[in-house]
Amino acid sequence: MKYEAINFQDKFGRFSDHWAPRVIAQLNDYQFKLVKIRGDFVWHEHADTDEAFLVLAGEMRIEFRDGQVDLGPGEMFVVPRGVEHKPSAREECQVLLIEPRGVVNTGEAGGALTALNDVWV
Amino acid sequence: MKYEAINFQDKFGRFSDHWAPRVIAQLNDYQFKLVKIRGDFVWHEHADTDEAFLVLAGEMRIEFRDGQVDLGPGEMFVVPRGVEHKPSAREECQVLLIEPRGVVNTGEAGGALTALNDVWV
Repeated sequence: MKYEAINFQDKFGRFSDHWAPRVIAQLNDYQFKLVKIRGDFVWHEHADTDEAFLVLAGEMRIEFRDGQVDLGPGEMFVVPRGVEHKPSAREECQVLLIEPRGVVNTGEAGGALTALNDVWV
Repeated sequence: MKYEAINFQDKFGRFSDHWAPRVIAQLNDYQFKLVKIRGDFVWHEHADTDEAFLVLAGEMRIEFRDGQVDLGPGEMFVVPRGVEHKPSAREECQVLLIEPRGVVNTGEAGGALTALNDVWV
């Protein structure tokens, strides 16, 4: 049988839009999603799940109502369920998200930045 | 409140043994574990869960009974549940594992390389 590595840079080369996560792998009922971000996202929360951000290239910030965390390459953070947060990046940043399948990027906030779900690349 | 990034290199600097995963973060009931590997691990499987390998530095191989996959930095692979596999690395390789909390590193094979579980760093 043929087993193939999933290469992040290869996958990132296949899309260019921002704030639109692409699924690259599934682990049980969890998904690994690559996303390119730039600018400000919307304040939102995920009531039913934590959400992991792992930065692969560039720099991003996650703001909370009572603080913030800055992430660079080789760093990660898990946003706890139910905690309002707003991701942002001054320049394009490449991020790996890990969360249960079906999580909508804007959570319960909705709006124009709501992306299609379960789109594989 | 103080929010702190989890930095992989900082965490790797805190231990040196091989094949002994350290938990660095939890996402719902899943854990992110850093592990340094070198040499050959044992053939084993996890009957109840998939297991994700994400290489942060170095090179590793995952052998299967009918093939293999080589992983380098910026690459990942999800071993499906119930599939026998044997990780190995010629030189030290730094890996991020993602799997449900409680998964034993040697699966149902046991043996001398079985590591303590749920050890945080």
